[in-house]
Amino acid sequence: MTAYDELMAFQRETRALALIAGRLGWDQETVMPRGAARQRGEEMAAIESVLHARRIDPRLGDWLEKIDGPALDDTARANLRLIRRDYDRARKVPARLVTEIARTVSVAQGIWAQARAAEDVASFLPTLTRVLALKREKAAALAGDGDLYDALLDGYEPGATGAGLAGMFGRLRPRLAALRDRAMGADHQPGGLSGRFDEATQLELSRELAGAFGYDFERGRIDKAVHPFSSGSADDVRITTRTVPHDPFNCLYSTIHEVGHATYEQNIDATHALTPVGQGVSMGVHESQSRIFENQIGRSRAFAGHLFRRMTALFGEIGVADAEAFYGTVNRLAKGYIRTEADEVQYNLHVLLRFDLERDLVSGKLEVADLEEGWNTRFAADFGYAVDKPSNGVLQDVHWAVGLFGYFPTYTLGNVYAGCLHHALRRAEPDLDTQLDRGDISAATGWLRDNLQRHGGLREPRETIRHACGFAVSEAPLLDYLEAKFTEIYRL
Amino acid sequence: MTAYDELMAFQRETRALALIAGRLGWDQETVMPRGAARQRGEEMAAIESVLHARRIDPRLGDWLEKIDGPALDDTARANLRLIRRDYDRARKVPARLVTEIARTVSVAQGIWAQARAAEDVASFLPTLTRVLALKREKAAALAGDGDLYDALLDGYEPGATGAGLAGMFGRLRPRLAALRDRAMGADHQPGGLSGRFDEATQLELSRELAGAFGYDFERGRIDKAVHPFSSGSADDVRITTRTVPHDPFNCLYSTIHEVGHATYEQNIDATHALTPVGQGVSMGVHESQSRIFENQIGRSRAFAGHLFRRMTALFGEIGVADAEAFYGTVNRLAKGYIRTEADEVQYNLHVLLRFDLERDLVSGKLEVADLEEGWNTRFAADFGYAVDKPSNGVLQDVHWAVGLFGYFPTYTLGNVYAGCLHHALRRAEPDLDTQLDRGDISAATGWLRDNLQRHGGLREPRETIRHACGFAVSEAPLLDYLEAKFTEIYRL
Repeated sequence: MTAYDELMAFQRETRALALIAGRLGWDQETVMPRGAARQRGEEMAAIESVLHARRIDPRLGDWLEKIDGPALDDTARANLRLIRRDYDRARKVPARLVTEIARTVSVAQGIWAQARAAEDVASFLPTLTRVLALKREKAAALAGDGDLYDALLDGYEPGATGAGLAGMFGRLRPRLAALRDRAMGADHQPGGLSGRFDEATQLELSRELAGAFGYDFERGRIDKAVHPFSSGSADDVRITTRTVPHDPFNCLYSTIHEVGHATYEQNIDATHALTPVGQGVSMGVHESQSRIFENQIGRSRAFAGHLFRRMTALFGEIGVADAEAFYGTVNRLAKGYIRTEADEVQYNLHVLLRFDLERDLVSGKLEVADLEEGWNTRFAADFGYAVDKPSNGVLQDVHWAVGLFGYFPTYTLGNVYAGCLHHALRRAEPDLDTQLDRGDISAATGWLRDNLQRHGGLREPRETIRHACGFAVSEAPLLDYLEAKFTEIYRL
Repeated sequence: MTAYDELMAFQRETRALALIAGRLGWDQETVMPRGAARQRGEEMAAIESVLHARRIDPRLGDWLEKIDGPALDDTARANLRLIRRDYDRARKVPARLVTEIARTVSVAQGIWAQARAAEDVASFLPTLTRVLALKREKAAALAGDGDLYDALLDGYEPGATGAGLAGMFGRLRPRLAALRDRAMGADHQPGGLSGRFDEATQLELSRELAGAFGYDFERGRIDKAVHPFSSGSADDVRITTRTVPHDPFNCLYSTIHEVGHATYEQNIDATHALTPVGQGVSMGVHESQSRIFENQIGRSRAFAGHLFRRMTALFGEIGVADAEAFYGTVNRLAKGYIRTEADEVQYNLHVLLRFDLERDLVSGKLEVADLEEGWNTRFAADFGYAVDKPSNGVLQDVHWAVGLFGYFPTYTLGNVYAGCLHHALRRAEPDLDTQLDRGDISAATGWLRDNLQRHGGLREPRETIRHACGFAVSEAPLLDYLEAKFTEIYRL
């Protein structure tokens, strides 16, 4: 065996163990007996400890040194690049800090949940202060002389920088806010759903949609869970969904969203399985797959027509007159405090608020003690009304409690990427609407598979999008698409 | 930390990883997508490789050397004894052989399944020859100058020897065969069930029975699988069951059987969790818990009365006149080729046949080429009729295909242990039948929990039984119980 072969054998085993750890997470959210929580904590700690030891195993350094990089093909070079990046990052963080962060955030999640339930920000602040301090320490270890926030962001979206995102987000905000204001002030307002949406039928239709969007049930399964998520890679990619009695869109669109994540993992070329290239390349690119499924395709006029016919066939009267009215209904803007419930226009405004606040927290410009006030002031400025309670404000998301500073912007980056991909997809498939109107999504899913998904992590995130689209990443296609779509729906 | 603390911390992590590997097995048999099989193989290999490395980790030797044994309490000494035994066994087997056995048996299982489906013994023999050779090589590495079969047996039932078991089994066989012949030749023969047994009601009743036998659903769950099994330990012990439309006993009694295994793991004192003492002490003792639940309690006259009333309440007419007739029905002897379907009297005759044949295979006295003839000759002698096809004979069990030489006798040993425990239980709980008749099993399950289950692996297997019973292990209580029970049922 060459050094490269040895390295890859080691990596395959590490990746298999990481998939096992991921499946433990799936198990915990879907089928685990309630009384098993404490034991599960020990099991997770054990496998994470094994994984961490492998990530900093000095043999990785030896192999990386021995391998003759230029002699390798593109795939091998990409694998090497990804391995080296992870190894360098892992080695920079002291073992003591890794353990301390793991221990702290596992407790912090419970404290956050209690604080949110009690609407008690103060009870959460000492914990958040501790988590932030640990993550800043980690960022300092990673960054060297560089920017702290960039060092954290790099763990989710390699190559992105806070300054670069701030520029892009600065161009998004005013046009999104203006579009929102015009639409919500318009005379014409789409109506909502009414009717009876029994759970079994919601789940049946969500499975039908999952299949239509290309989810391979032979290599996955759908279960119910409190929060929808996708988990796994290659031949075992499982998703969850949930049902809300009076809101079937919750089940249907969250399923479509998770199928976007899941098909990305399922559609990577089988030759890459269990290698670093054999997984979604970044959080942002992953989110682009879920968002283009959910929004640009799933909430298109053509597909909405198909969904209207399926829903009336399955549920009977749904309180919407026709396909055209239904297109408005699935795209309706509404006031609201909660990011995960936000519409396509306002969603990014929620993310941008968090991005600015967390950048200031990490840089030290904003104190934890001032976070709630900062949130509420910014929310009022961006949305035009005041936060009514902490669970609708600074306590709504779990991310900061579990130390995910640098994660939020990947949501909006995913939307920006989805805007680019949608622009390119429409150019490549001019007849797409004819197919979507009859529920045939195969041209869209096939284009994404062939141009993006199958390559996994072969290219860096932005390069992955550029390669698929044939043009550089920009926020312009997303903004143009949103303005055209909502101008028409709201008759602006 | 003392050397003992360090050793135990390491062991807890190893045990947590082993539980994860076990849960992967559960996942595979219950919820895994069909297309994930190959990837799952890589995942299992990865975690087994981690586990093997930990079992032979030289730090174990250092810690074991440093620890001052006599200064420790009973529990700590038992943990040390178990750790030392596993470490010694693991080190004796070369890594190459471990890998080779794992690779060979994973393929062998498929070849066996194909051969069984095709009724083609010859196509399986080269594989069996290879598996046997590897297991003999492993036995030789373990045994040193000792007996090969004993070395394998020791992996399932520490302390047992082939010669000791042969003596005990030699005393069992004639009395079991004589009892079988008298019962099956009697004028009075119990009848069978008839009726409609819908699947949902079978599962509902099996859950009710699981609860009555003490299964803690907060720390477990029941799913359907092709083969019933129990998996896990401590706070996450899951069982599976299956349903057969016209045979509700298959679901009900296999659930009771698995609950015996599961409650053993659930009822070990929580202070032992994730330590070597914190799991069932041997295959034989484990089987004793499932068999006393299933047979001595579950097929007792008193409990059969309760079950008759529950079944007629839930299923209506079941083709049996009254509780007394039903007691005969659940204990009915029948001709048959298949071990797993055998009644309480004949089951051990099936096991004894396999024990003698596998001992001769391991010692070299019997060639693989002569195995089928050996099986068929012995079966005709023990059962009085000829094997009609290989799937009813030498190809019926998976055990040898996957290298489990030395495992079969633990089934009968479990029955012998159950006989001892039942004798002691009846002495301790003279009013047991009054409770069983109303479906209250708590005195029996409580006695087993307090006298045996809670101690886990604190004592060696035979000593575990002796401690619970107050007398030494012997086959006599089992034989006396069977002869009394079936003499009465068959009016001999």
